[in-house]
Amino acid sequence: MNYGIVLKVLGSLLIVLGLLMVPSYIIALVEAGPDRMPFLGTILLTLAIGVFLFLKERKEKSISAKDGLAIVAFGWVVASVLGALPLYFSGVTENYVDAFFEIVSGFTTTGATILTDIESMPAGVAFWRSFTHWIGGMGILVFTLALLPALGIGGFQIFKAEAPGPVAGKIAPRLKDTAKILYITYITITLAEVILLVIGGMSVYDAFIHTFGTVGTGGFSNKANSVGAYSSSYIHFVISVFMIASGVNFALYYSFFRGKITDLFKDEELRLYLGIITIATLAITIDLWLVSYHNLFYSLRDAFFQVSSIITTTGYGTADFNQWPTFTKGILLILMFIGASAGSTGGGMKIIRILVMLKLIKREVGKLYHPRAVMPVKVNNKVMSNETIARINSFLALYMVLFIMSTLIVSLEQIDLISAGTAVAATLGNIGPGLELVGPIENYAFFSIPTKLWLSLLMLLGRLELFTIIALIAPKNWRIDV
Amino acid sequence: MNYGIVLKVLGSLLIVLGLLMVPSYIIALVEAGPDRMPFLGTILLTLAIGVFLFLKERKEKSISAKDGLAIVAFGWVVASVLGALPLYFSGVTENYVDAFFEIVSGFTTTGATILTDIESMPAGVAFWRSFTHWIGGMGILVFTLALLPALGIGGFQIFKAEAPGPVAGKIAPRLKDTAKILYITYITITLAEVILLVIGGMSVYDAFIHTFGTVGTGGFSNKANSVGAYSSSYIHFVISVFMIASGVNFALYYSFFRGKITDLFKDEELRLYLGIITIATLAITIDLWLVSYHNLFYSLRDAFFQVSSIITTTGYGTADFNQWPTFTKGILLILMFIGASAGSTGGGMKIIRILVMLKLIKREVGKLYHPRAVMPVKVNNKVMSNETIARINSFLALYMVLFIMSTLIVSLEQIDLISAGTAVAATLGNIGPGLELVGPIENYAFFSIPTKLWLSLLMLLGRLELFTIIALIAPKNWRIDV
Repeated sequence: MNYGIVLKVLGSLLIVLGLLMVPSYIIALVEAGPDRMPFLGTILLTLAIGVFLFLKERKEKSISAKDGLAIVAFGWVVASVLGALPLYFSGVTENYVDAFFEIVSGFTTTGATILTDIESMPAGVAFWRSFTHWIGGMGILVFTLALLPALGIGGFQIFKAEAPGPVAGKIAPRLKDTAKILYITYITITLAEVILLVIGGMSVYDAFIHTFGTVGTGGFSNKANSVGAYSSSYIHFVISVFMIASGVNFALYYSFFRGKITDLFKDEELRLYLGIITIATLAITIDLWLVSYHNLFYSLRDAFFQVSSIITTTGYGTADFNQWPTFTKGILLILMFIGASAGSTGGGMKIIRILVMLKLIKREVGKLYHPRAVMPVKVNNKVMSNETIARINSFLALYMVLFIMSTLIVSLEQIDLISAGTAVAATLGNIGPGLELVGPIENYAFFSIPTKLWLSLLMLLGRLELFTIIALIAPKNWRIDV
Repeated sequence: MNYGIVLKVLGSLLIVLGLLMVPSYIIALVEAGPDRMPFLGTILLTLAIGVFLFLKERKEKSISAKDGLAIVAFGWVVASVLGALPLYFSGVTENYVDAFFEIVSGFTTTGATILTDIESMPAGVAFWRSFTHWIGGMGILVFTLALLPALGIGGFQIFKAEAPGPVAGKIAPRLKDTAKILYITYITITLAEVILLVIGGMSVYDAFIHTFGTVGTGGFSNKANSVGAYSSSYIHFVISVFMIASGVNFALYYSFFRGKITDLFKDEELRLYLGIITIATLAITIDLWLVSYHNLFYSLRDAFFQVSSIITTTGYGTADFNQWPTFTKGILLILMFIGASAGSTGGGMKIIRILVMLKLIKREVGKLYHPRAVMPVKVNNKVMSNETIARINSFLALYMVLFIMSTLIVSLEQIDLISAGTAVAATLGNIGPGLELVGPIENYAFFSIPTKLWLSLLMLLGRLELFTIIALIAPKNWRIDV
């Protein structure tokens, strides 16, 4: 690894991070909150470290794949380490690990919180906490759709250059152009949601907070009852639709803006994604209607909201779904694992991988009676290579192994299996709330420091698609440079 | 499909089944129990149907792969349909579905029971119920190690003819010889355990009951407290060891009897199997010792017994492990999925598939830094084909999909997720007891009739390695003959 260039790029990232804290500082100033000095101090510290690293001498002009991975992984960690300082210094959290957990949860767009009294936060801190979702969401789009393809790293992408579908890196020929298109799309969606929420009667400040949580598929709110604090069905509906939109592969928006709308709805991942949302919403609506709510409209409204929130791994709630019937909770639990589309701001296993897995099962059944037939697996009418299939299978297997092992570790807290398992699923999948002790009206405050650190690691692993971080912490014999 | 030959072979199976009920009938006669007439009637009915089918005219002399699968699948179902009659007619179960569930549980070597008062059963019925474990265990060995390879069916085997390891069908060149070796091994192990249990003070009758449950990795007992009814640590230990022995690939015993003992312990599946047992036993011992029992000997004894019982999918208990700490329950839950070795009487996903999955993950991590390297996956120093790997991946994925969907279905009973999930895991994995409402001191009596039928199907699917039954019930376009 070329440490010089890695540190230099990290330096420029920190300068950007320092500047991104300025709006929160301004809010703190306007409100004359206790978080003024913490923000000012953190901004100066971040900029100082950033400038120091950036000005360091370096020789090489290009970065290798491994350098790129290191920048991304360390970038997320360093941004969380520094981004947590305002929370800690303004006394929002009792100890630094809690602040770190909260901001890792922000940057990874998870939305799991250790805060027990959300509405008492200073306005600047509340804004910053939600803004990290927006930054993290943007970061993951640039990472998965622009940086990885530009670096030519095959190990992390779902599709390689020759593979089918709306391919990362094919959006625009150059890294900067791709990133630019992503910025414009992301900001357009953001502004559209803010405007629609303000029209629905939300304050501009709250509209920004909830839009950051939506488009980043994060889930932080400044209300104790999350989106449930708003009784307007219009607001529930707007947020539902924007959550779903944020769980779509952003490469598809490029096709959309170029007018290739029919192409869009031929995309198999999008169709499966919308299909799962429809079926899950209908199933939960019926279950809630018959077993719990006994009112069709509210059943449909809350089912649609919760399905959108969980499959996109946002984690907002309009009701305490931990009190819903078991069948409904089971469906939500499945959605926690499935997650959103690849190339979106959502987490989880990703729809495309589930799609390929289902096609592989279908092929194997078909092979029972055509044992000698060659049956390639196709997505969007293009054949997937054995390599890509192996990569997807290994990802899914590793995801399950990590889930299982981490559940064991968390179960050492002497809590029930559902709480332990959903705490892991909700952090690894970047969702936020789970069930039982980590349900939508609960929080992660009661966990011990080591567990909070482990869950923070899971959020990072989930966000960076597992292998990125594993590659960096793997034993020496796997560390040979590319 | 050639229905003529399928029915003829089923006829011969039914004749054997009728004869296999005779010992139970004799016990019923000796004890002058209420189950005398039910057995006599069932035996005569079974033999009559068997002879009728067997004497039917047929043309072809050889059977196709599809015929073979149909015989096995229908054989298991028909044997359960008729084998359930003595339970129903002697009044042991209230309705026929309960009797069917119980005997499916027997033949599939699951051990899940709907009986609420086990010790009040007539002696003949109790013997028959446990004897179905022994028959089912023998049946699955002949199916997986002799019949499938003889039919040349690639879709179901883990290894194909050219694949590595202790290969099914390589034990002996011809079907009958292979089956003979299996019979001898199986009967030898059975008699050895009976003798050791009688030496430990068990009655001959109880020794047979518990040996059938052990070597078939079934788990039916004639005691309400299962093996916990015996306080002797010697008996716990003997049963533990024989459960482990029954979870070993029986093809390895052939190597063993031929004196190739060093070869045996080079087998990667066996090593991983014994490794998991060791680690799980130690982890649970420490957890029980520190959190629950505060006694090292009893912690080790009960941990070893329960780990052996669950990983081999037997399901015997010496303690109510539902009351054990969450960490321990988590480990046991993982073992429920892992299961025993391929080619054993145990169920679950099978160790060999877990082994391959772990190797695939390791390869993918390795590929991050050797993106162009060709890294074949080897088991026992032989390369696995892409086809075999795809088959294993699809099996694991299908197992999880079935588990998840079935948990949703069972959750409609309005029970908690752990009860629903472990009821499915314990039937699909042919284990028996799960956690909470289906824990070791509970039973499956409270489920509705449709759920009992669904769980019965899961037991059959698990026992016949999923694809066998799916192939038979799959849509027409998958049904083209080989």
